[in-house]
Amino acid sequence: MLVSEVDTPALLVDLGRLTANLDRMAQLARGADLKLRPHTKTHKVPEIAKLQLERGADGITVAKIGEAEVMANAGIDDIFIANEIVGAAKIERLAQLAERVKVSVGVDSMEAATPLSMGFAQHGRRLRVLVEVDVGLRRCGLQPDDVLEFARAINTLPGLSLAGIFTYAGQVYDARNENEVAGIAAYECRIMGELAQGIAGLVEGEIRVSGGSTPTAATYAPASGLTEIRPGSYVFNDRTQIDRWAATPADCALTVLATVVSVPEPGRAVLDAGSKSLTTDQARESPGYGMLKEDNAAVLVRLNEEHGFLDLTESDLKLRVGDKVQVIPNHACTVSNLFDEMLAVRGGEVEETWPVAARGMLR
Amino acid sequence: MLVSEVDTPALLVDLGRLTANLDRMAQLARGADLKLRPHTKTHKVPEIAKLQLERGADGITVAKIGEAEVMANAGIDDIFIANEIVGAAKIERLAQLAERVKVSVGVDSMEAATPLSMGFAQHGRRLRVLVEVDVGLRRCGLQPDDVLEFARAINTLPGLSLAGIFTYAGQVYDARNENEVAGIAAYECRIMGELAQGIAGLVEGEIRVSGGSTPTAATYAPASGLTEIRPGSYVFNDRTQIDRWAATPADCALTVLATVVSVPEPGRAVLDAGSKSLTTDQARESPGYGMLKEDNAAVLVRLNEEHGFLDLTESDLKLRVGDKVQVIPNHACTVSNLFDEMLAVRGGEVEETWPVAARGMLR
Repeated sequence: MLVSEVDTPALLVDLGRLTANLDRMAQLARGADLKLRPHTKTHKVPEIAKLQLERGADGITVAKIGEAEVMANAGIDDIFIANEIVGAAKIERLAQLAERVKVSVGVDSMEAATPLSMGFAQHGRRLRVLVEVDVGLRRCGLQPDDVLEFARAINTLPGLSLAGIFTYAGQVYDARNENEVAGIAAYECRIMGELAQGIAGLVEGEIRVSGGSTPTAATYAPASGLTEIRPGSYVFNDRTQIDRWAATPADCALTVLATVVSVPEPGRAVLDAGSKSLTTDQARESPGYGMLKEDNAAVLVRLNEEHGFLDLTESDLKLRVGDKVQVIPNHACTVSNLFDEMLAVRGGEVEETWPVAARGMLR
Repeated sequence: MLVSEVDTPALLVDLGRLTANLDRMAQLARGADLKLRPHTKTHKVPEIAKLQLERGADGITVAKIGEAEVMANAGIDDIFIANEIVGAAKIERLAQLAERVKVSVGVDSMEAATPLSMGFAQHGRRLRVLVEVDVGLRRCGLQPDDVLEFARAINTLPGLSLAGIFTYAGQVYDARNENEVAGIAAYECRIMGELAQGIAGLVEGEIRVSGGSTPTAATYAPASGLTEIRPGSYVFNDRTQIDRWAATPADCALTVLATVVSVPEPGRAVLDAGSKSLTTDQARESPGYGMLKEDNAAVLVRLNEEHGFLDLTESDLKLRVGDKVQVIPNHACTVSNLFDEMLAVRGGEVEETWPVAARGMLR
């Protein structure tokens, strides 16, 4: 099918740009002696996770057990759930998952670690855990000064096996320039590297020191202090990554195909894609809720749930009712979560239809 | 199952509050001699649409053909798609839908009306259309001065049957006080009533003059100029409706059940529900991304995709890892679109599980 024949709104991924993005990140990781464990919450598509593994990734990251189950069902066998697991129902599912794939999870409190320990000891198994470190995001995770003592305590619990430490320096999204991005990454590496020296002796085998993100990926050098990175957004890129100096519009692989349904006055067009297709997530500096691939000066200045308000006053595009356009979104990770399928396109043709199999896997 | 045993994040609807909300709106419509055609995009759940019909609604409204198909499959037989329909694939589906239920749609341009006309004439059928009028939202719709001429032109097209006019005075969400809400509703009624007088002669049978919204619903009196209203949010209410003087926290029927996964420092707790459960939609004045049902002073001040940052500094709640809480969202319509099912609860027990069957029906 031709892209021009696809009914709208529809989620498109450009295969050429996708594979270029995968290859670039694999090269960055290799160049810095880092393992690459991409965060698949950006796409939630097993077919893309497999492409990542074919093109240089060493394992994958997910945010939820439900996402891990979907990826395991697709045959992926090394999965890090970069999140705290709380609640009896989840621990039971995690134990079942650990029977069939190599799984690791985060911990940052004895309140969460103790039931995990009991659950896995009961099954006569050991769960790989990584202690979460807060290097400045102030989300989850222990302050660096508390990590060693906590890691020692974790190591005394049955049913758990300390595999390393991990962090997410998400404050990089508040950086004001590329120097600040590099500074945040340097701080992350120093703190994690120092902690790793103290903890390595507690770990069986090689310690995992996990960090990274799409905006910081280009800043790492060999012997950084990290051993693996978990970027997510690089697979598609979006306006947020453009604002983070991590991509150009030409690097954006994910778009929402939409139809002009009304042109109430010159300079204004209404699309059939609103916040239920694009989310109201903001980019960092770029205004509005998305821009056209056909002309980046055509910006969605307002969204209702099923309507996108396109401002064409800065654009030479002349749009008419029935025209189809591609919207580059602000935040690809949440947009992919709104669609049941993603159309993989190349040169104006739909090559494959991929279910967004981990969409809505919130638990 | 007890609510306390439900795994999180989960979408809950309180049945007592839901039915109270339905009854109140039915009473408002009856008191103003208005038919009630609620917008089901708020919930996307056929079971709730049926409750609305049992409790005073005369038909339903949807935003997309896909939503209409889901509702028709559930046995609902009078559906208004309050939106422009553009594209050959959609016209074909609409023709099939019109074979089995009473369906009406919006039109606001000859570019959209002409293919609709041709499509239905080809099938030897006539499609009920309502002309969309812009009473100030500046989204879709004709300016009032252009409506009569357009309605006459529509009436000459084969395959279409003019059923009336409709509007959505969504600018009510920018009102600064209740007087402005009432003023916007009064203007809507006057414009629509005047237009209806000119157009009634073009319509076979009784003309439909459709408007309304949750914030304006209490302002209408008999002989308002409208004949039907299409409120949506009233079914659940949310922080946006609280900010619009249309509800109190006690009227909010929809919540997201979430678990505390980390308490990194006093006054701050992290929930397992983020923007993929709550959206980043803003309320009008209420800050942040949601508040706890247990204590409205406990506010979600920041969201990542799978993490909610709860500020407890203004709250006496003492939360620990593993505790479950209910979040009242900013915007119920987009939150229901993120979950595959909704748990209908009463008095701490789950009575029913309803699939959100029209979730993701974007086309």
